[in-house]
Amino acid sequence: MADMNTSIGNTERKPIRCKAAVARKAGQPLVIEEVIVAPPKAYEVRIKILCTSLCYSDITFWKLKDPPGCFPRIMGHEAVGIVESVGEGVDEIMKGDYVVPVFIADCGECKDCKSSKSNLCSKLPFKVSPWMPREETSRFTDLKGETLFHFLFVSSFCEYTVVDIAHLTKLHPQIPPNRACLLSCGVSTGIGAAWKTANVEPGSSVAIFGMGAIGLAVAEGARLCGATKIIAVDVNPDKFEIGKKFGVTDFINPKSCEDKSVSQIICEMTDGGADYCFECVGMSTLVEEAYASCRKGWGKTVVLGVDKPGSQLSLTSANVLCSGKTLTGALFGGLKAKSDIPILVKRYLDKEVRLDDFVSHEMKFDEINKAFNLLIEGKCLRCVLWMD
Amino acid sequence: MADMNTSIGNTERKPIRCKAAVARKAGQPLVIEEVIVAPPKAYEVRIKILCTSLCYSDITFWKLKDPPGCFPRIMGHEAVGIVESVGEGVDEIMKGDYVVPVFIADCGECKDCKSSKSNLCSKLPFKVSPWMPREETSRFTDLKGETLFHFLFVSSFCEYTVVDIAHLTKLHPQIPPNRACLLSCGVSTGIGAAWKTANVEPGSSVAIFGMGAIGLAVAEGARLCGATKIIAVDVNPDKFEIGKKFGVTDFINPKSCEDKSVSQIICEMTDGGADYCFECVGMSTLVEEAYASCRKGWGKTVVLGVDKPGSQLSLTSANVLCSGKTLTGALFGGLKAKSDIPILVKRYLDKEVRLDDFVSHEMKFDEINKAFNLLIEGKCLRCVLWMD
Repeated sequence: MADMNTSIGNTERKPIRCKAAVARKAGQPLVIEEVIVAPPKAYEVRIKILCTSLCYSDITFWKLKDPPGCFPRIMGHEAVGIVESVGEGVDEIMKGDYVVPVFIADCGECKDCKSSKSNLCSKLPFKVSPWMPREETSRFTDLKGETLFHFLFVSSFCEYTVVDIAHLTKLHPQIPPNRACLLSCGVSTGIGAAWKTANVEPGSSVAIFGMGAIGLAVAEGARLCGATKIIAVDVNPDKFEIGKKFGVTDFINPKSCEDKSVSQIICEMTDGGADYCFECVGMSTLVEEAYASCRKGWGKTVVLGVDKPGSQLSLTSANVLCSGKTLTGALFGGLKAKSDIPILVKRYLDKEVRLDDFVSHEMKFDEINKAFNLLIEGKCLRCVLWMD
Repeated sequence: MADMNTSIGNTERKPIRCKAAVARKAGQPLVIEEVIVAPPKAYEVRIKILCTSLCYSDITFWKLKDPPGCFPRIMGHEAVGIVESVGEGVDEIMKGDYVVPVFIADCGECKDCKSSKSNLCSKLPFKVSPWMPREETSRFTDLKGETLFHFLFVSSFCEYTVVDIAHLTKLHPQIPPNRACLLSCGVSTGIGAAWKTANVEPGSSVAIFGMGAIGLAVAEGARLCGATKIIAVDVNPDKFEIGKKFGVTDFINPKSCEDKSVSQIICEMTDGGADYCFECVGMSTLVEEAYASCRKGWGKTVVLGVDKPGSQLSLTSANVLCSGKTLTGALFGGLKAKSDIPILVKRYLDKEVRLDDFVSHEMKFDEINKAFNLLIEGKCLRCVLWMD
């Protein structure tokens, strides 16, 4: 359990000088340096990060030379923290609260947030912006006074960060920080995609392309929904053993398929195609393979992976018409952060949702470049970085 | 009401010599000539066509020089008729029954036909075949003994045709033939797409691209489902007046949009995008426009139009991921012929479903080439051709 009062002194309304890992150039090692974090403005909250984990999207945008890549930037978007101070107009959260930031907003007021069908806030829409969501300003500067850009409205690679209240969810204090941070992005995305976006039916078949943390979380979500056949597709055969912990029943290594395509094998294994397919890598060609692997008549393919901007899907109009299949996508697995994260937390505390096995590594924040390399090399699922 | 015994004499088990409109060459006028129609084999039914109507797919495949275009062929797939004789193993239908043929099968036995989620029979799968569905043979020859090819398992441009029992639905005798034939393809497809595929919610907004018979039938289906905003998109302004009869509330002519795109206008009219969009023309670029017109978070785009084989859709993986929209398609509007056509017939007889206004022209079968030209010129919705 988090210690709710760790190091929170009398810093309110004052800038805080603290340590951050700054991405100064695309693809270059992050630089651990001191930065200044401004106090929160209206509807903003400054939080002391307890721990942050690495998600593959951090790598994707850290490598990106062109916009929405931009530097110097404080990256990181999976984290958990304690509220240090709140800006004007913030009443749902107070100093000392244990909170998880999420890259998509849940304002609670707009047409989308009020609808049960959408998690894409219209008031503070999702974008890969270098700023805070309500105004084009940053809360970070370096010691020379240069602006440091935000990332996904979270920027958790810093001891303190400022997050809009619409991007924060209060947590049950019993979930440990190194489990709670997983719910900030990847694991919620995967579980939510099976649970909310696809609404996987009991007894159904599921195929998952790419068994990183998101893919494994889709398996976990599908298992929780009662899927009886969960097929994992990955070029790394080690993923099968890991996958079994999350309900994976079958494994396909595309490198060992000989003369058959992955979709042919899946169609044979499932008597015509999987009921649900999930693309968790971020490759357009894999979306097409997933679409080909899902059942005509009712199969649903869900895109979860983040491909390079502009990557085109190659689907024919006739295939969409004649197959009766559905293609959809989801940010954050279709979850509404403020109402759905507490459900996942409760299910974790009730020992239904498995989170522990997602954490393959834990390190000190200073070791962040080592953690980046592990993730790039595919040697880690989730590496939790502790601030203290 | 159909006279159930019209001209049905003692022809059982014998070939029938009768009149057909034969497509001898791609894009060339049909030739009215005498042909020989073989008796039905096992699981087949020979029917005397009462009337047939023209659907745009007849034109599409009549123009097609390369496969699946093939000649000489007896086209036509919207029709209604009376059973002249049945082959071995046929027990659900008997001589004298009033029936509608449908291009997709409903065998009642396979995984798809038994599932409520699919209308794509696995036993006799849909294809644009030149043959009967169970074996690669034809029931038609010309007077020189040359084989004439089938079309969509119906081939209704002939006084008699042979249809597989899985492709036939028995009709309530009270629905007139020139209304019943509409349920054989286009009108069912449109109504079904709103009702079954999209499952349009009361109070929702709908945008329809292309106001031919299918588009108008989507409007009719959306109206029946309780949609309150039904936007028609067509380059022909006359379609607005016709559309109003079927519930259309707003009209957009892409030629009069000036500097805005159709999707921008729809997004403005619907506060963010239509809940459901239907592409009823068969143009990949229009599918993309429909997708752009539907609401982020929950919008659904349904492809109904038949584009040229191989036409690619241009969607980015990121758009599918970040928009939360759904893309799907449906043959025959997702309807299961044997169970859903009787529901539409009942709703027509109960004066809920409007069919009368779809019939813009009625002619004698001999005038079929005139009817083709009217449809090509966009001057007709449905032209019913009477056999007698």
